Parts: sequence; structure tokens; C-alpha cells
Amino acid sequence: MEKIYQASTAEGAIDFINMTDLEEGAKEVIPKGGYGYISSGAGDVFTYQENERAFNHKLIIPHVLEDVELPDTKMEFAGEKLSAPIIMAPVAAHGLANVAAEKASAKAVSRFGTIYTASSYASCTLEEIREAGGADAPQWFQFYMSKEDSINRDILAMAKRNGAKAIVLTADATVGGNRETDRRNGFTFPLAMPIVQAYQSGIGQTMDAVYGSSKQKLSPKDVEFIASNSDLPVYVKGVQSEEDVERSIGSGASGVWVSNHGGRQLDGGPASFDSLQYVAEAVAGRVPIVFDSGIRRGQHVFKALASGADLVAIGRPVIYGLALGGATGVQQVFEFFKKELEMVMQLAGTQTVADIKKTVLRENRYL
Amino acid sequence: MEKIYQASTAEGAIDFINMTDLEEGAKEVIPKGGYGYISSGAGDVFTYQENERAFNHKLIIPHVLEDVELPDTKMEFAGEKLSAPIIMAPVAAHGLANVAAEKASAKAVSRFGTIYTASSYASCTLEEIREAGGADAPQWFQFYMSKEDSINRDILAMAKRNGAKAIVLTADATVGGNRETDRRNGFTFPLAMPIVQAYQSGIGQTMDAVYGSSKQKLSPKDVEFIASNSDLPVYVKGVQSEEDVERSIGSGASGVWVSNHGGRQLDGGPASFDSLQYVAEAVAGRVPIVFDSGIRRGQHVFKALASGADLVAIGRPVIYGLALGGATGVQQVFEFFKKELEMVMQLAGTQTVADIKKTVLRENRYL
Amino acid sequence: MEKIYQASTAEGAIDFINMTDLEEGAKEVIPKGGYGYISSGAGDVFTYQENERAFNHKLIIPHVLEDVELPDTKMEFAGEKLSAPIIMAPVAAHGLANVAAEKASAKAVSRFGTIYTASSYASCTLEEIREAGGADAPQWFQFYMSKEDSINRDILAMAKRNGAKAIVLTADATVGGNRETDRRNGFTFPLAMPIVQAYQSGIGQTMDAVYGSSKQKLSPKDVEFIASNSDLPVYVKGVQSEEDVERSIGSGASGVWVSNHGGRQLDGGPASFDSLQYVAEAVAGRVPIVFDSGIRRGQHVFKALASGADLVAIGRPVIYGLALGGATGVQQVFEFFKKELEMVMQLAGTQTVADIKKTVLRENRYL
Amino acid sequence: MEKIYQASTAEGAIDFINMTDLEEGAKEVIPKGGYGYISSGAGDVFTYQENERAFNHKLIIPHVLEDVELPDTKMEFAGEKLSAPIIMAPVAAHGLANVAAEKASAKAVSRFGTIYTASSYASCTLEEIREAGGADAPQWFQFYMSKEDSINRDILAMAKRNGAKAIVLTADATVGGNRETDRRNGFTFPLAMPIVQAYQSGIGQTMDAVYGSSKQKLSPKDVEFIASNSDLPVYVKGVQSEEDVERSIGSGASGVWVSNHGGRQLDGGPASFDSLQYVAEAVAGRVPIVFDSGIRRGQHVFKALASGADLVAIGRPVIYGLALGGATGVQQVFEFFKKELEMVMQLAGTQTVADIKKTVLRENRYL
Repeated sequence: MEKIYQASTAEGAIDFINMTDLEEGAKEVIPKGGYGYISSGAGDVFTYQENERAFNHKLIIPHVLEDVELPDTKMEFAGEKLSAPIIMAPVAAHGLANVAAEKASAKAVSRFGTIYTASSYASCTLEEIREAGGADAPQWFQFYMSKEDSINRDILAMAKRNGAKAIVLTADATVGGNRETDRRNGFTFPLAMPIVQAYQSGIGQTMDAVYGSSKQKLSPKDVEFIASNSDLPVYVKGVQSEEDVERSIGSGASGVWVSNHGGRQLDGGPASFDSLQYVAEAVAGRVPIVFDSGIRRGQHVFKALASGADLVAIGRPVIYGLALGGATGVQQVFEFFKKELEMVMQLAGTQTVADIKKTVLRENRYL
Repeated sequence: MEKIYQASTAEGAIDFINMTDLEEGAKEVIPKGGYGYISSGAGDVFTYQENERAFNHKLIIPHVLEDVELPDTKMEFAGEKLSAPIIMAPVAAHGLANVAAEKASAKAVSRFGTIYTASSYASCTLEEIREAGGADAPQWFQFYMSKEDSINRDILAMAKRNGAKAIVLTADATVGGNRETDRRNGFTFPLAMPIVQAYQSGIGQTMDAVYGSSKQKLSPKDVEFIASNSDLPVYVKGVQSEEDVERSIGSGASGVWVSNHGGRQLDGGPASFDSLQYVAEAVAGRVPIVFDSGIRRGQHVFKALASGADLVAIGRPVIYGLALGGATGVQQVFEFFKKELEMVMQLAGTQTVADIKKTVLRENRYL
Repeated sequence: MEKIYQASTAEGAIDFINMTDLEEGAKEVIPKGGYGYISSGAGDVFTYQENERAFNHKLIIPHVLEDVELPDTKMEFAGEKLSAPIIMAPVAAHGLANVAAEKASAKAVSRFGTIYTASSYASCTLEEIREAGGADAPQWFQFYMSKEDSINRDILAMAKRNGAKAIVLTADATVGGNRETDRRNGFTFPLAMPIVQAYQSGIGQTMDAVYGSSKQKLSPKDVEFIASNSDLPVYVKGVQSEEDVERSIGSGASGVWVSNHGGRQLDGGPASFDSLQYVAEAVAGRVPIVFDSGIRRGQHVFKALASGADLVAIGRPVIYGLALGGATGVQQVFEFFKKELEMVMQLAGTQTVADIKKTVLRENRYL
Repeated sequence: MEKIYQASTAEGAIDFINMTDLEEGAKEVIPKGGYGYISSGAGDVFTYQENERAFNHKLIIPHVLEDVELPDTKMEFAGEKLSAPIIMAPVAAHGLANVAAEKASAKAVSRFGTIYTASSYASCTLEEIREAGGADAPQWFQFYMSKEDSINRDILAMAKRNGAKAIVLTADATVGGNRETDRRNGFTFPLAMPIVQAYQSGIGQTMDAVYGSSKQKLSPKDVEFIASNSDLPVYVKGVQSEEDVERSIGSGASGVWVSNHGGRQLDGGPASFDSLQYVAEAVAGRVPIVFDSGIRRGQHVFKALASGADLVAIGRPVIYGLALGGATGVQQVFEFFKKELEMVMQLAGTQTVADIKKTVLRENRYL
């Protein structure tokens, strides 16, 4: 690892056509260890690669005489008005990409007008993130639990104090996946993790050590604990099975978050998009579904919504935008997805997000 | 973009074996921006690539004792005698490929003896196209509607005055797809669009601007409008869903045109050939079906006809032939498809186009 | 094309491990035009490539406690004792590969102890082929019919005079496929075709001209004609459909020959091995089935036999062996297939060819 | 082949991230002929490659609220306490990889705490292997039978004398597969095979000669012979069919071993993992199932156990570890699999090996 970690200081408009451009550009400006940490997947990257390929498993049928014009991506979710059904996924340590870190990303997401999910392993404090977003920004807090209940209560209180509207319990990373790029790079965290400093300093830690310091033994009781100690809606993140749907809803979760952690955890599991249909069937409309992992195009957002997701979260692309353009870059990334989604909506014959959710995709029989 | 756009001035016989040769040759003579516009697909080019691959989803079974000799591709359609069930697809701006533009292509198609579909965005006037084809040439007019009804009436009157036998309403391009090659090339139209000059000058416009100037809000009422204002058969182009089949037929369309715009519009949708079977089933013989997108071989024409198409339209290959050989090149392209189709007909044991349409293809189980 | 065609004069043992070695070696010694003609497939070579890939569609399950030792490939067919169920496919113009031509290949096949199918387009006379094989060699004659009945009667009489035990009517090549390698090489036949000289000189002819001089309009009547004019068993070659099975058997054919002409005729059709199962089901044991196209391994022979074939014919590999080693090379090729087949038989737990034919392959679900 | 075979003398910790690293490293230190023999597969290596690819045919669904912490790979098998359900597969001639040969590998496996299967073709004597493992090590003996019963009785007595707890009858290698790399390398065994010296010297022999000297004609009687002459549990190795399951159990086998010999025998057969489901269904819990072929990851071990295996054997990776690090390297390889398995267990929500075996994998529909 680099002795002194030199993250980008970029701020301003980026020139890009698509997310591949952005990833290639980000590789140039993010230090090798940080880029490896952000971009890589687990094991043989089968699941990582499936995440994007899987969107071809279902096809959008164009509808051409549907009387659609200037489709509208705006929607309401839990009382919040959002510019689009596209939100910020929790990603650790934005400071790896840009010295402005979460201060820049939270500001941009607020300007774009959608939900910002702050990671437990953020490089900034929740106070800074709140300040960057502004008092009314819909911010959620992603929680990696400590092994100690008292610390957990303190962190939840801190989140609440800083206006979190929901708690996202990440439950699929109780140990780190076999992220071999990090091992090859000898990557350790160069930055502090102020939010969880009560149980994890961050600096100089491997990912295995970071995950090891958090709570492994997660169960429905933890959902209940968070709900009762925060009085906030709880989303369980990492749900891919019918069993976890029932455990989540049964223990009072307000929503489930379908994710395979961007293909960084269990290689040899399904693409997140493939799991979405199973989860949506099991949820059967009882609670909202958030979806992430593999979104790189407006058509991916459309397909996730048409497959049962209520909100779609993006992670890596935002971090690449942050590295290359700071807050401006982050906002451009959200605008990119919104613009592609509008184009897809027009061509698919859907005027509103509600129309997308009623769309039936065609199973791709030829794979 | 090139400041001065220098299209080819070629006229004369081309030496080629197949359409790949032609595409490679055309790349050498068409200016980069124009070639990118003509050849490229949308987004990740998944749908673009599927268009050709999809023909392997169904297999032609050779039939060897069928008493066939010198099979005949001739047919009649809507009272016109055609050399083959292969027609000219509407393609914008032939002037990008050859300075002779539609004057050359219309002449060649007339000589070959099939239907010529003139694009709204042609580089020539409808008067020039009519003159090139001759008084009796079966010419159709492809319509991108203006937002203003009066302009639409004027254009339809112009088409009628110039002997159009049918109007093709392109309904799948109310906005442009994410054609990234054009963005990378900074492509803007270097040529005028005389047919639609009442609402679009063409010159210096991006494709997004061109599509943006046309009507987005298409519905069955537009089919009715065109039919009643032109008294001509209307074909709805871009139909891939059962719903659009019903809307088209229900609003008086004389035919549907299965197409995904050559993979240039909605990436993440099905191959056009895969949609054909759904459309054919929905149409159930009520109206004729025209098919395009991905045709590069005689076997593709055969498979489309055996899957429910009545006419098969070709686009890019014709433009490549135009770039390399002018009118002569265009005619050679049509002769190539006719000759390959005759060979396939003989080996498949089919004497006539009607025999092809009765052929049952074998589903490829191994994909 | 080469002005003077210099075929190989090799005779003697070849050093090779598998058929890929042989193909690569042959490419070095056969003149370019001849090699292109022999090795290439039609169109986009989809069907050509499928021919070999298709053997992976079905899997041989090893059987390990079956009490098998030194499995035996010998069998009887139509009263002839064969070393193995592997015969020589008809291939035109062995003189393209070796100046000894059919004289060498017929001698080697006789020594190996199996059926030799002489092509109508052989470079030697039937008298020479008979002499090379010896009086008792089981030789069949592959027939490309003339358009004139009197010539056909003469050729059948010649075949009979030279001891042919069966007539193979090739019915899948009434026109040539789109063999683009030949066109690119400007290939014309450099050698005479003495057997059919009454209707085709051969020398200087393109394949299209050669096929064009033969009869196109084949039907069950031709099977009847050959049977009644030769009093020999007739095999219809190129059968891939249920309809042709019925036409063949209905018109008195003694067997059907499943083949797609080595992927040289109709690109876009199925692999020959995939068609075999359809044909075997339609034949239902009424007549024997010969199979060719794509055989490169002993396991392929095994799979074809287990899928309904009674005899398996090999073509290109034999010609490569002929080019590199004359009669000795040809015999080595047959020994290669016999030896690999014995190995597969042992591992699959099959003692005899009859055991192979009772074997059930496992459908490969993962393709 | 090398005149003097110089195997590695390495002993000590290896630096590696995954099994690909290990294979690449081993290629550098093992002489070419030996490496070719160890690493290569049969024929076109279709089955060899499928062995690893096939693990993607079934997917592990993460389970995140299962109350799991520090999962435990320990288990009991046939009265033995094992560190993990991962055992040493029989591999011939460890001396090809390291001069310490089986003395090093047996010691390491004993330290790790699992079953060691000694090959009939080991480079060491059974006495040496026993001594290296220690008196209590659970060692099994893999048996290639001689054609002579008296020799077989002697070898079984020797195994028993040296504390073998079970006899593994390898039944899928009565002849060698078409291992073309060995033929290309002109590989002959450079080392003696002391265990079977009564019928096979080893030195200077090709694999074909080695297999040829052993018994081909295996049947249920041989299982009975071994059971009655050894009074030890017998495992039949190479079982992939329902028929062999019944023959094995019917003749008194104590277990079946699903394997395709690492893809070295019958190319064109199924992946071993794909056969496992058929075998598990046929066994229906009557006897334990051992599985090998293609294991390179902890997730593979997990998937095999969830598909019916009771023990999973690893071969090539151990030999690579032996070449690079002697006994230490071997132990590291076992630790690698154990550690990855623990990670997968945590993420899949399984606390114990018994939990893994109750897990239902999701069929991958998208292949």
C-alpha cells in the first residue's frame, strides 16, 4: 500500500459517455489500493460479472403507440419527494476516492433530490454528512452493528440526532468475502471511520479485520433491537432468500434490500437481479423493496423496477463520479441514470414510475 | 465532425463475397461520423448483436427429395409484382454514403424490381426519388410526424403527389436511443432533410435534436390521422408487442412492421427476429407483416418468411453497397440476397415463396 | 488458382496425436485452393462448427463395474465383416490431396477392413478404385445423377460392373452451398472427373458449375430409378427430416444417410448429430442409418452409434491422412478412430458394438 | 522426457492467494513431463473444463439472519474426528512433485486432521506413508488391482498391516484416457511404484502400459473379493451412473466415490459435480458418498456437500502445494479450503457441516 494515501481533489464537470468511461477514468485518479478495494469482486468474480450480465435475462419490449411524451421519473417514497427512483447505496469510505468524501457526495445527492444512505464506515461524521445534505435531505443510515449493545445504542442515537429517516442493517457482510485484489494489493484502510470509532478505528485495518470487529451473529432479534432502539424504519440489506424475507418482515422490518454487496461477498451465488424475482414473489407487496448490485444503465433501473423493486441504489458509479468530479461528478452520475431512464421509459411506452412497475418483461429464452 | 462532409462518388460494380466484406469496404469510404451513424447500435449493443445472432435460434431443415428445381423468388404483394420478398428499408440520409444519395438507391431498387421505402429524413426530395425510380416504381413513404397537424397534412399530400403506395409510420424512434458512437464522434447531420424541412432543417443537428423535433406522443389516433388524410395503406413500424399489434390493427393499419430499428433504439430489448414469432402469433394472418433488423444472409430472409413475415426489408447493407458502388452497388446487394435465397430454397426443398411460408423451422434447443 | 496443381506425393507413416494435428499438417502440403475446398464450410460456418460442438449435447456416462475387457469393434453389416462401424465417406477428388488419389485411399480402407464409398467426382476411374481395393473389398458408389437418364444408366452399369455393393444417392447438393473460401481463392477444379465424364469434364470448373451440371430435381422417383436400374441397395444421403425418411423408405431405399455434407451446404441448419436423433426416431429401426459430419474422435463415433447410427462415415480426416501419408496415412486415420473407440468402449462399460447401440446417453442440460 | 528427473525439494510456507496462483507456481518447479502428467486432462479437455465450470450450475443463496457465528467445519466420519469434510484424494507418484513425496503429504494431512488416501502408484511404500502420518492417522488405501488374485491378496494384506481403514477401488481407469499432453511430452514414469512392484515396476513406463498391467475386467465380484479379503470398508471410485451405484451397494461396498478422475479419463462425459446429483438420488442415503474432480474453492466444497457428498477429496491442488512447499505447502492448501469453507458457511447461514448438507442450492437457469 501507498504510505501516504493521496485521494483525488477533483471538483467540476466530467466528460463521459457511459459508466465504463467513468470506471476507466476513476482507475487513473484513485490510488491503486483504493481503486482495487472499490472496484473488485469476490473469488473468481463469477457473481460480480453475473450482476451486470443478468439484466439480459429479461427483456424490455418496446411499446410504440402508448401516447407517451416527456416521461416523468419523479415519485414519492415514504413521504419524500424524489427526482427519480434512484438512490445512493451505502459505500464505505468515500474518502478513498476524493478528499471531500461524503461531504461532496451527500451535497450532490441532496441537490439531485433523492435518498442518501450514509455508511457506518464513512470517512466523515454523520454531522458532516447532515450538514452537506442540508436539514431536509432524506438521509438513511447504514448500520454495521458492534458486538456490544451499548455501542449500538449510541450509534443509533447519533444517527437519529442527525436526522436519519431509516436504518439499513447490512446483514450480508458478517465476514468479508474473498476479495483477492485487496490481498494482492496488501490493502489496508488508510482512513479513519469516525462513525464507528467506538469499536473500530479503521486506519491500517484489513477488510477482514474491519468486518471481524463488527457483529457476526445477526438474527431477527437484531432487527427488533434496532427498531425498538431507534423508532425508525429498518431495512434489511442483503436479502436474497424467501427465508430472510420472512425473518425480516416477521421481526418488524419496514423493507428489504435485495443486494449481493456488488458481488464482493459470496462468489458462487446468484446475480442480485436474478434474486430479485424470488424476493419480490416472497414479499408479495407487504413491504417496499430496495435493489442494488450491477446497475450501470437506465435500462437496468427500468428492469429492476419492473421486476419488483421500489427503489434502485447505485454505488460504484457514484464513487467513480466522486473521484473524477467531486460533488459535480456525483450529480452528473445521477443525472445520467435519470436521463437514460427517461429515454427507456419513452421507448417502452411508460409515462410514470407506476407504469414501469406494471410492465411485464419478456423472459430471454435464448441464453 | 468533418467540416466539409465528403461522401463517396462511387458508381460501378463492387467486388464482394458477403455483407461483411461490404461493411468493411464501406468503412473505408464513408466519412467517420457518417459511418458511425449508419453502422452503430445503442448502448452496450446487446440488442444490436442479438439481431443477427437470433437467426440461429431457429434452424432450417434441409429437404432433399422435394422435386425442386430453379426455385422462384418472385411474388405479388398488394398488386405489385416483386422480384423477391426483399424490399428497401427506410434509412435516413443516403447522402451520407454517396453524393448520388436516394437518386441512386431508388433507381437501383426499381431496376431490381421491388418496393422502395423513402425516409422522411432522405437527402433528396420525394420528386427526385420518384423520378429516379420511374413512374411505376412501387415506392412507400416512411413518415416521422411533425408535432403540427398542418405540416403532417402537407407532407402526406407531397407523398401522395409523388405516387407513394403506402405510408410507413415509424413509431419506435420518438426519442433517439443512446447511440454512443455518435456522441463520441460528436456527430451532427451535415446534410439537409428536404422532405421535412417544414419542421426540421437537418443540417448541424444531433440525432437527439432531430428526433426531438418530431412528434413524441404517438397513439392509435395518429394511425387514423394518417389513414384518413392520405387514403393510403398505413404500416406501423417498430411493432414488437401484442398490444401494439392490436392498437395498429384496431386503428386501421394495413400492416405491421416488426423492427427494432436495427438495434439503434432500445438496448436491452429482444432481437427483432425473436419478436417476430410473438407478433406473427398475435396478428394471426389479419394483416401482412414486414420484417427488418439483422438481415445479412439469404438464410435470414428465409427464416423470417418461415416465421411469419411477408416482406423482409434490408437497410445497412444497401447503404454500404451505395457507398461503394452507387446504383450498381445497391442492385448487386439485392441480387446477393436473391441469389442466396434461391440457394437456400433449393436446399430446403421449397419451390416458391409460398412454400417457404409453409416451412416449419426447428427450434434450436442448444443455446 | 495455381496454374499447375501440385498435390502431395507422400506415402508412409505420419506422426500425429489427434485430428487437429492432421488438419494443420495437411494445410501445409495441400495447395491452397485444394485445401480451402476440402476444409471449408458454407456461409458463416455456423453449421460447420456446430457439427463438432453438437457432440457435447449428449454425454457418455462412464460405467465401471461392467465386466468389460478388450472391447471389440468388429461387426457385420449387410453380410460384410467390418473391423469397426467406421466407413469411408464419399469425398470428391482425392487427387487434390495426393497424386495417388483414390488408388491409395481405396487400398488403405480395404486393408483396414471396412466399406469404401467412391465418389462420382473421384479423380480415378471405378476400375482403378476396384483394383486398388481388391476383388472382395466392400465398395459402395456415391452417385451424383446426370440430367439425362441414359447417362445415369451407363454410370450405374459401370458401378455394378466394378462390384459396387450399394448406391449412395447424394441428395443434399443439388446446388452448391455458399462456400466463400472457394470464391475467395477463385478455386476451380484442376483435375478431371473420369467417372462422370459423360456429363462433366471437371477440369477448370467451379463447384457451382459442377453441381449445376448434375440433376437438381430429385424426388422419390430417382430412388426408384436407381434401385430398378441397378438392382442394388440404395442409400439416400443428406436425410435430416422426417419427411425425407418417409420418402426414402417409401421409394424403396435400403437405408438413410444422415449428413449435412460436412457443413458445406446449408448454413443455418442443424448439426448433423442433432438431426440424427430426429431421423432415428422416424426410421424406428426399419432400415439402417449411416451418419457423417463432424466426427473427429472415438467418442463421437460412440455417441453417433448410441444415438441410432449403424455406421459412421469419416471424410476430411481421411483426406488429411492421404495428403500426409498416402495409403499408410489413411490406414492410420482409421486405426486412430478404432483405437479411441476401443478406449471409450472400455470406459463406458461396453464390450461390443451391440452394447454401444443399447447405451443411453445423458442429455447435457447445461448449454 | 528429462533423462534425470529433478523433482522439487521445497519445504516451507508458500505465498499464494488462490489455487490458480498455486498451479502457475507449480508449473515453474515441476519438470515439464511431470507437470503435464499431473495437470492435464483427456482428449479435447471438455470434461476437464466442465469439472470446474459445473459448480456454476447451482448457486448458493446467502442467508443473512441465521444467527451464525464462527461456523465449525469439524465433523466425524466412520468414527474418525476430521477437521473438515475435506480429504486427500489418491494421486499417483507424489514424487513427481517433490522428492519428499508421500512422506511429506501424509505428514501434512495428518497434522491438518483428515483422511489420507494413499495411491497404489505412490512413490513411497505404505510403511513410509504410515510412519509419516503416525499410528493413529486415518489412512485409506486406493487399489489398482493386479490381474492376479494372489498379488491382490498380498497387497491388501500389506495395506491392512499398515493400518488402512478402508480400501478405495478405482474402477474408472481400466485403460488410460487419451491424455495427449503425455504423448506430446513423450512422458514415461521416471519413478518406481513400490506398492505394486509385484506387477508393475513403474520406471520408464507410459501411462498406457501402467494401466495395461492392472486388471481391466472389473465387476461386482471384485468388490466382494476386496471386502472378503480385507475385512475393510470398500469404496468404489469412479461411480457416475445409477447402475454402478446398485452394483456397488449390491456387492457390499461401504460407500461410493463420485469422480471422473479429474477429467483425465473419458472426455465427452459429464462434469463430476453434475453426476453427483444423479448418484445422490440413486444412493438415497444408503451409503456415504465421497466426491472429487474440479474442487478449487471453498464454495465448491460447500456445493458438493449440499448436493449429497459426505466427504470432498482434493487432488491436484495438494500436489501443487507439495511441489512448492513440501509438507508445509500441503497443509496450507488444506487450510485454504477450510478457511474459504468457513467464510462461505457464515455467508450462507450455516453453522455446521450438517447445516450445509440440509442446504438447498438454487438451480442456475441462465446457462
